[in-house]
Amino acid sequence: MSEIPPLDSLVRLLPLTTISDARGDLGVAEVKQLCGFSAERFYFLYGGLGARGGHAHRRLRQLMISLAGQVEITVDSGREKKTYILDSRKNGLEINPVVWRDIVLSPDAVLGVLASEPYDESEYIRDYETFRDVVSLHN
Amino acid sequence: MSEIPPLDSLVRLLPLTTISDARGDLGVAEVKQLCGFSAERFYFLYGGLGARGGHAHRRLRQLMISLAGQVEITVDSGREKKTYILDSRKNGLEINPVVWRDIVLSPDAVLGVLASEPYDESEYIRDYETFRDVVSLHN
Repeated sequence: MSEIPPLDSLVRLLPLTTISDARGDLGVAEVKQLCGFSAERFYFLYGGLGARGGHAHRRLRQLMISLAGQVEITVDSGREKKTYILDSRKNGLEINPVVWRDIVLSPDAVLGVLASEPYDESEYIRDYETFRDVVSLHN
Repeated sequence: MSEIPPLDSLVRLLPLTTISDARGDLGVAEVKQLCGFSAERFYFLYGGLGARGGHAHRRLRQLMISLAGQVEITVDSGREKKTYILDSRKNGLEINPVVWRDIVLSPDAVLGVLASEPYDESEYIRDYETFRDVVSLHN
């Protein structure tokens, strides 16, 4: 069994371009250039009442952007954990496959997620022990 | 010169899927399935202080979603105009090429835009008379 990749190679906080003028503000994520995928799906979380996430993906790549409020995202490679506080529209969090994530939104938060594939339940890993097994098999 | 296509064939209000439970709300736009393109770029407008838009695109296809507040989008095919009020996270507005748009955001609004191509200034039409010429040439 080889090394589990460092968490920092699986999850990256990326600066977004912001252009502000008399009309207001524009935030830009050139997803293809920034992350190397096109988004086949976009979803957004809001009305934060409790914890979300609690899963990993086998194949899906994602770029998460806090579009309002504050979002706390804890990512876990199976060996390392790190918590990101997304409270600015000036960053996006890229999450690669086989990373467990737990997400907490403030009541006013909107978290936008650009996803590399359409929804496919079979590529979700929803059990933490299975996640640990998949991490071991892949590394 | 053939007919200019009806505005309703160029601009479509599309229902998004919303899933609400004890954790909060999830809105989903399966962009590829819904609009037939993948988003190479995502941008978002906020801090609405004045009118935005005031242009058309030669090639770019877009899906616009009001993620907070209220957004008023007036679309113009060169023959017909229509104003959409986006004040719900349950719809997205698909805008195809060669449609002039004017956009007004409420101060608390966040408008998310999924775009089919990277930014390319040369495919913007920023002058209304040029827009009318392009419409005539294409139809």
